[in-house]
Amino acid sequence: MDERRGQAYHRRFSPLYTDYYEYSMTQGYYLSGKGRDEAVFDIFYRQNPYGGGYAIAAGLRDAVEYVLNMRFTSEELGYLSSLGYREDFLQVLEKMRFTGDITAVPEGEVIFPGEPIISVKGPLIETQLLEGLILSMVNFQTLIATKARRMVCAGEGRSIVDFGLRRAQGDGGMGASRACFVGGVASTSNVLLAFEESVSVGGTMAHSWIQSFDSELEAFRAYAQMHPDDSVLLLDTYDTLGQGLPNAVVVGRELEEQGHHLQGVRLDSGDLAYLSKKVRAVLDEHGLGHVKISVSNQLDEYVIESLVDQGAPIDMFGVGTRLVTGYSDGALDGVYKMVQLKGRPIIKISENPAKINIPGEKELYRYYDSGDGLWLLDGLCLARGDDEPTVLMHPDFDYKKTEVAGLKRENIRKEIVKNGELVYAFPTLLETGVWSAQRFSLLYGEHKRFANPHAYHIGVSRELFDLRRSLIDARSS
Amino acid sequence: MDERRGQAYHRRFSPLYTDYYEYSMTQGYYLSGKGRDEAVFDIFYRQNPYGGGYAIAAGLRDAVEYVLNMRFTSEELGYLSSLGYREDFLQVLEKMRFTGDITAVPEGEVIFPGEPIISVKGPLIETQLLEGLILSMVNFQTLIATKARRMVCAGEGRSIVDFGLRRAQGDGGMGASRACFVGGVASTSNVLLAFEESVSVGGTMAHSWIQSFDSELEAFRAYAQMHPDDSVLLLDTYDTLGQGLPNAVVVGRELEEQGHHLQGVRLDSGDLAYLSKKVRAVLDEHGLGHVKISVSNQLDEYVIESLVDQGAPIDMFGVGTRLVTGYSDGALDGVYKMVQLKGRPIIKISENPAKINIPGEKELYRYYDSGDGLWLLDGLCLARGDDEPTVLMHPDFDYKKTEVAGLKRENIRKEIVKNGELVYAFPTLLETGVWSAQRFSLLYGEHKRFANPHAYHIGVSRELFDLRRSLIDARSS
Repeated sequence: MDERRGQAYHRRFSPLYTDYYEYSMTQGYYLSGKGRDEAVFDIFYRQNPYGGGYAIAAGLRDAVEYVLNMRFTSEELGYLSSLGYREDFLQVLEKMRFTGDITAVPEGEVIFPGEPIISVKGPLIETQLLEGLILSMVNFQTLIATKARRMVCAGEGRSIVDFGLRRAQGDGGMGASRACFVGGVASTSNVLLAFEESVSVGGTMAHSWIQSFDSELEAFRAYAQMHPDDSVLLLDTYDTLGQGLPNAVVVGRELEEQGHHLQGVRLDSGDLAYLSKKVRAVLDEHGLGHVKISVSNQLDEYVIESLVDQGAPIDMFGVGTRLVTGYSDGALDGVYKMVQLKGRPIIKISENPAKINIPGEKELYRYYDSGDGLWLLDGLCLARGDDEPTVLMHPDFDYKKTEVAGLKRENIRKEIVKNGELVYAFPTLLETGVWSAQRFSLLYGEHKRFANPHAYHIGVSRELFDLRRSLIDARSS
Repeated sequence: MDERRGQAYHRRFSPLYTDYYEYSMTQGYYLSGKGRDEAVFDIFYRQNPYGGGYAIAAGLRDAVEYVLNMRFTSEELGYLSSLGYREDFLQVLEKMRFTGDITAVPEGEVIFPGEPIISVKGPLIETQLLEGLILSMVNFQTLIATKARRMVCAGEGRSIVDFGLRRAQGDGGMGASRACFVGGVASTSNVLLAFEESVSVGGTMAHSWIQSFDSELEAFRAYAQMHPDDSVLLLDTYDTLGQGLPNAVVVGRELEEQGHHLQGVRLDSGDLAYLSKKVRAVLDEHGLGHVKISVSNQLDEYVIESLVDQGAPIDMFGVGTRLVTGYSDGALDGVYKMVQLKGRPIIKISENPAKINIPGEKELYRYYDSGDGLWLLDGLCLARGDDEPTVLMHPDFDYKKTEVAGLKRENIRKEIVKNGELVYAFPTLLETGVWSAQRFSLLYGEHKRFANPHAYHIGVSRELFDLRRSLIDARSS
């Protein structure tokens, strides 16, 4: 992790930022003598957000930073003591460091429901306590990275910019802006995120700037003089086509005469398709063909898709609320479930068959179509090393199978932490964004569409199928 | 502010946590010689969240804490310098302290669209910079406090508990849990929030606790022995009625024999109305009538209302995702708009008449019905001291009026900060929750219902109506 992050610049992660029952259970494990039992927890989600066909993994780096730096202060231990936790248990917490392993898909990877995107292995007393904070980071950043990718898709090459900070959920704006870059946005308005992650930051003026001058033209001129080559003028304070645009043309021409160039104009209300066409025509008419048009105002992937379809001459979409809050889902349903204890695979039964987990320590493989080299399906095997299936089976229906013999496959998870030590070099946020776009290009278009996307298939090996079935039978009998 | 908060325990607020254009504009004001001009900004929202009839104000304390503690580190100034900001401007930032006034409704107040819930008055250079962070705190916490109040309403006296941390949006979980208490929840699972705010925290076991034992009965027994009077047993790991409930009865009876009492059971899946009735009957049959039933699993105000209507014998609702993310809205649309500069009232025109703001520095009064003493309507007057209307007018339609002569009225905003000094004693979070419930009891039921609530009216004085109309006419001509 880079130096600035390593200092946890803007905050300290408190181990109290978790659910109370993690402490109740952890003390219980300790008192029952089970604290050192080796457990494996899988993090997976059940349903793709936004009714889509995929998600984009994010949040791992922040989660790992938390795990490796988890320390209790004396105030925190004192508070737990005041809640009734035992002194001997608190002494264990005080000395506790994570000594286990974390295996995960890298951030930016395309992922699907039911896949163990992160597995945490280690003593029960350590692994239980991590649930709340890992989930809160991974669920949220994955939700937002996925939303950003959908908007970038809809933009078909036009820039998507994160303007969401003021509508982000409290301090959630940091994770939101970060995840936006994993999902492919070009820039952000969030200065702190740009500072911490060395990414592009931008923005120019609000209505208040215009209102603070006696006239709009004066406001535009003042700004353009201070930023002769990077001004984006906001057109809609009083009347977009009647005042804002003519004033922008005046200032754009004045800049040209001084050897400078107006960078752009921004539309923040009204019918963006209609207005952008009018604005483009007038700018071009006045020799301002280089001036970019950016738009904002309650955009999401559907509005962007519609504007692109209508041929609106828009160069940049500034997106706020619906990007950084993951509208209209609000949360990914990711869970942290025990799948193995002391080497013994574990299952949780549910009346809803889809909620019965896939037990045991596993490997996650991605299989490539031998024709065009895109992704065919994913497969889960037992993590024994010798589980190399020729057939992948639907986890619930044994008559649904896919032949995979001879297909190229790749283990898409990496060792991130081994015996409590970081063994993975996190790429920069920009590198992650670029890599994620490459990965996304390997997904068939049928899984990318917004309406009724084709479900990407995940199979299990015959051994894993049989293991799961035998555990279900044992628990149901 | 209490001592623990004053230490900004878990984080430092960075002034970089804002939108880039705030810095562009602020430097612009400085360079234009307008930095010391006195501005008034109003924070208001346009639409009640969730299609409801009201909102509950929250987020003020965190916003004020930020404003009064805003300081730049040399690293932060260095970063701004690297972005091209001028050294003389950065020297101004380095020394900058907020010297203005903040007037606001207290947290927990019932508020309505268009009302200036917070006004910030001071030099333009200071007030512009605060926009992003104040909005991000107030928008989010108000959204969540409102959601909590709706759920508490639906619960009709049963406890609502915040279980949302793992589904909260990143670090947004702190503001979310805090706002839940403003809106009336009884307890939280968020340990850090409970530590910082001295509120009730709780929770007992997850499925992983059950799974870590060879049998469910053994897991229940082990937990009950450690917590003989505060165990809540989770019934649905394998089979709620077939295994979980009988095992809970065994353990409940064993505790009785030892002179202790099982506190409760929790249902986390299945049909909660059906299951809660079955569970209640069996518990009662075995002399366990004191054992409480709590439920969780994708609850919101509509599910809670339905369960209450069905007579489900539920004592406590544990709510997660849909509470702490404000599902299905995700964000309040609050804005920070300049309404006055150098004593001159300011307006922003919009093609949408509802988006034209109410200009000038104002007072916000609440009028009481002379009959039953509930709230009749709110009124906005000019903040001159002599604007005591006998009639309140609809801001857009001059033929819609309400007589208010002789009605009891109260100024519902308080001075919070005066000349940069805190002049208001923030109550504790628990006090705020209690006060908020009292305030809410003064709102007519017609505004509280979920479906098509009756709109609460806000009028303006004749002077304010005329001022606004004259500014619109001047800008439109």
